[in-house]
Amino acid sequence: MAEKYVIGLDYGTLSGRAILVNVKNGGTVARSVKNYAHGVLEKALPDGTPLPAAWALAVPEDYLEVLTETIPELLARSGVKAENIVGIGLDATASTFLPVDRGGVPLCEKAEYAARPHAWMKLWKHHAAQTQADRMTALAHERDEDFLKWYGGTVNAEWMLPKLLQIAEEDPDICREADCFMEAGDWLVMRLTGERTRSMGIAGYKLQYRKAWTQGGEEGYPPGEYLRSLSPVLEQTVMEKLGGRPAELGEAAGGLTPAMAKRLGLKAGTPVAAAAIDAHVATPSVGICRPGELLMVLGTSCCALLCSERAAAVPGVFGIVKDGILPGYYGYEAGQSSVGDTFEWFVRNCVPESYVREAEKAGLDIHRYLTEKAGRLRAGESGLLALDWWNGNRSCLSDAGLKGMILGLDLATRPEHIYRALIESCAYGMRTIMEVFEAGGVKVERVYACGGIAKKNPMMMQIYADVLEREIRIGSSDQGSALGAAMFGAVAAKVYPSILEATRAMGHTEPDSYRPIPENAAVYRRLYQEYTVLHDYFGRGGNDVMKRIRCLR
Amino acid sequence: MAEKYVIGLDYGTLSGRAILVNVKNGGTVARSVKNYAHGVLEKALPDGTPLPAAWALAVPEDYLEVLTETIPELLARSGVKAENIVGIGLDATASTFLPVDRGGVPLCEKAEYAARPHAWMKLWKHHAAQTQADRMTALAHERDEDFLKWYGGTVNAEWMLPKLLQIAEEDPDICREADCFMEAGDWLVMRLTGERTRSMGIAGYKLQYRKAWTQGGEEGYPPGEYLRSLSPVLEQTVMEKLGGRPAELGEAAGGLTPAMAKRLGLKAGTPVAAAAIDAHVATPSVGICRPGELLMVLGTSCCALLCSERAAAVPGVFGIVKDGILPGYYGYEAGQSSVGDTFEWFVRNCVPESYVREAEKAGLDIHRYLTEKAGRLRAGESGLLALDWWNGNRSCLSDAGLKGMILGLDLATRPEHIYRALIESCAYGMRTIMEVFEAGGVKVERVYACGGIAKKNPMMMQIYADVLEREIRIGSSDQGSALGAAMFGAVAAKVYPSILEATRAMGHTEPDSYRPIPENAAVYRRLYQEYTVLHDYFGRGGNDVMKRIRCLR
Repeated sequence: MAEKYVIGLDYGTLSGRAILVNVKNGGTVARSVKNYAHGVLEKALPDGTPLPAAWALAVPEDYLEVLTETIPELLARSGVKAENIVGIGLDATASTFLPVDRGGVPLCEKAEYAARPHAWMKLWKHHAAQTQADRMTALAHERDEDFLKWYGGTVNAEWMLPKLLQIAEEDPDICREADCFMEAGDWLVMRLTGERTRSMGIAGYKLQYRKAWTQGGEEGYPPGEYLRSLSPVLEQTVMEKLGGRPAELGEAAGGLTPAMAKRLGLKAGTPVAAAAIDAHVATPSVGICRPGELLMVLGTSCCALLCSERAAAVPGVFGIVKDGILPGYYGYEAGQSSVGDTFEWFVRNCVPESYVREAEKAGLDIHRYLTEKAGRLRAGESGLLALDWWNGNRSCLSDAGLKGMILGLDLATRPEHIYRALIESCAYGMRTIMEVFEAGGVKVERVYACGGIAKKNPMMMQIYADVLEREIRIGSSDQGSALGAAMFGAVAAKVYPSILEATRAMGHTEPDSYRPIPENAAVYRRLYQEYTVLHDYFGRGGNDVMKRIRCLR
Repeated sequence: MAEKYVIGLDYGTLSGRAILVNVKNGGTVARSVKNYAHGVLEKALPDGTPLPAAWALAVPEDYLEVLTETIPELLARSGVKAENIVGIGLDATASTFLPVDRGGVPLCEKAEYAARPHAWMKLWKHHAAQTQADRMTALAHERDEDFLKWYGGTVNAEWMLPKLLQIAEEDPDICREADCFMEAGDWLVMRLTGERTRSMGIAGYKLQYRKAWTQGGEEGYPPGEYLRSLSPVLEQTVMEKLGGRPAELGEAAGGLTPAMAKRLGLKAGTPVAAAAIDAHVATPSVGICRPGELLMVLGTSCCALLCSERAAAVPGVFGIVKDGILPGYYGYEAGQSSVGDTFEWFVRNCVPESYVREAEKAGLDIHRYLTEKAGRLRAGESGLLALDWWNGNRSCLSDAGLKGMILGLDLATRPEHIYRALIESCAYGMRTIMEVFEAGGVKVERVYACGGIAKKNPMMMQIYADVLEREIRIGSSDQGSALGAAMFGAVAAKVYPSILEATRAMGHTEPDSYRPIPENAAVYRRLYQEYTVLHDYFGRGGNDVMKRIRCLR
């Protein structure tokens, strides 16, 4: 009998990628990437209509093109026949959403709305609703709203609700005209299957939809009275325009429509799983299928994911959602706003010409060159200590106003010292998250990492092992999210009865893991104590200088 | 009648320079520079004998070559005749000193000592006597020695006494064989005049020689009992090997010997002033001739000089010496260990290739390019705050173990933001010094600046004016020390009855001064408050993290 395959689709900020995966063992047999034709709209709409600061939009048609370009390419590259492709799963950034009409057509594709910015798809990183988010936070605290304690105590401007409030306030017509506001993932599932579903994983994290699991909490979105106090239009929008059949992770949203099947070269009726959040869906790809296994998704930022049988309002964890990461468990999401971004900032702004020339001479990428130099330093040798808040602190302080700091600089400080100190600071930030989890009663029994950095930078992963004092297992796939999506596709296709079985068969880590080196761990334990004192001094009100100097800007 | 001239000689770390100055108005008519042939000996003696870490020696013969090369060049370039050159003054780094025999010959020039490192001239920046300095500090505190409170409370490894203790302990033969340990300046004066003098200005700052002016203090070097407890050899050396006729600033040490006059092309008997310390001697060159006028000598480091009619043990001022800067006043010396050095560190280690290329394209030196970019920022716009301790803190914390810090970094931080924040931090450090002076009862009525940076960087001087909230006057001469030395030469020659009259005639500032811009000053007042909180937190024991992480290095 021929081998069977599933497709995993992963929609990022600048491109979408697809992989074709052997359903028996999770092996990737083909891959294809498509950059979005319009990229991110930050300055203007395609027709030239200018956009204010902090906006970030996307073009829905670009997302459809990913389907029609990558999937036929997978087939062509692999030679696999459509009849052997048994399921599809997909994930996307969130909350990335768009208003659609009754037929599912994006409002921005209709001539009468094409020039109205709020008709377009808002990206997760659209930060123009910050004032709305701040007001939502303030009102929630004022009204002592229960929901916020499960979301880190602060309304994040990247969630859907503050963005909806921005639309309600700035262009309420859009709220009236839209039949539904859909997450990009749900919308893509609808384009594939014709079914309008609402992924409960996404709604849990990005719309604050709570199942009736918290003590005294009520099922549903944040209370109507709270929403109404913010804006009657917002309340109405939440009540009427967030439809779609609730769908759990691994559930089949529907089968591929004949028209779409034809366009993609697949079989009509092929099961398509409900949409998932891009970082979260990587969890099963490394083989995690039980509580207490922490996954660090290391990229431009760091997403820390953990499942537990317990619901505990751990401070600074910015999302605790039942069934949100793996079915049957409470899914905890925490993270750091800037990890790879900080290293990239450093390389762009702080690396001298002489290093660039030496790296070129050695035929090394500049990150690789710095990594080699930094890797020759002993733990603590840099004499530096940094706070990793180049883009604020997401966990556990939930404070976007915090800033980075480097301490210990002297005339002998070299770029590799700073580079290493930045890496160390990210590891200290991660240890803080881990300790807050454990102090909140959520056990961390094993630690995994995936993402570009995890596979490419052994020095960094060794530092993480030394700082966390944990063995770190690395996911084998460099496309953890796409693989995870494919695995949920396999569950939707009923190849496996549950994600647990799919994970055992298809999720893998590298044969070698990183283990703490005792001498290094001893040094880092002391440095981490120093980090913690500074973390609390600057981050918990001991000295709010970071906020005050920002006001002078 | 022909114009009359004086020669000013300024001995730095890497070169000596001479200027020929019109004695009527201080105008420079010729200049000449000579780099020391051997530079600084840091790794080995000229014969290859290796040197331990932190050593820094010089070759006396190199210093004589400055005389025989630059002075004839001044004559040749200016066409001024020897008979119209009426006096000579000189300054040198301190404590830079050497052991000599009865005839004034350096021990290192004698075959039997040539291979012994301690026989050579030790530069001010020879830091290998740090452990000796630390022990001297500890013992002085233990014995509650009075002298140290006039010297910032800490024995500095750059002074002569800890270096003598190092010699006494490591090669006591040198102490026995030397007839005298002479400051480089005094030794050069002796080579010119045949007279062995000891400049009381240098001895006051670098040998802790105190005149009987402090309440209850005794005239002389630190007490014999204290020195004996450290080392009997040290006590004996101080008692017997620091001879020379005491000479005050502006006093004629003697006249040029016929032999030296012939070598230099000058008239025998030309008066030569007693030696002075290089930074201090710049004071009259900007026209300062009374108390309450602060001079900032801005170069790789910053020396802050101030005269007062009062003797007050201001904390953190590392030298308070009667007649030490200007005759008749108490001279206060404070400073910052790294100013220009920090900017140079930044340019070497932290400026990206793209900036270097753009600077080249614009035909600008990289400092100039960064200055232009940083100059376009408003006060406070960088969002950064730094502590200026890249080489420890000299005043007012007297703590070499402190380190630099930058706070407020984020993904939008650019090199020019950091460059400006570093400049601002140096200005905050200077304001701290000024405030400590005033709190100690030593008034600062006017502020002057001289040195390379002061003339070359208007943006920096404007920031200083804004931060200090003071008008800043800039010395006209770019060779303030050599000019000051020449002025003392004119006093020694009795062209003027005192340095007061010489200063009025020969000292000048630029016609335009820098005045605080009120809007900027208001922003900097708030940032300076933040600086002060961090200064005290990290520098006064609130959090000694800078020291602790250094121990982990």
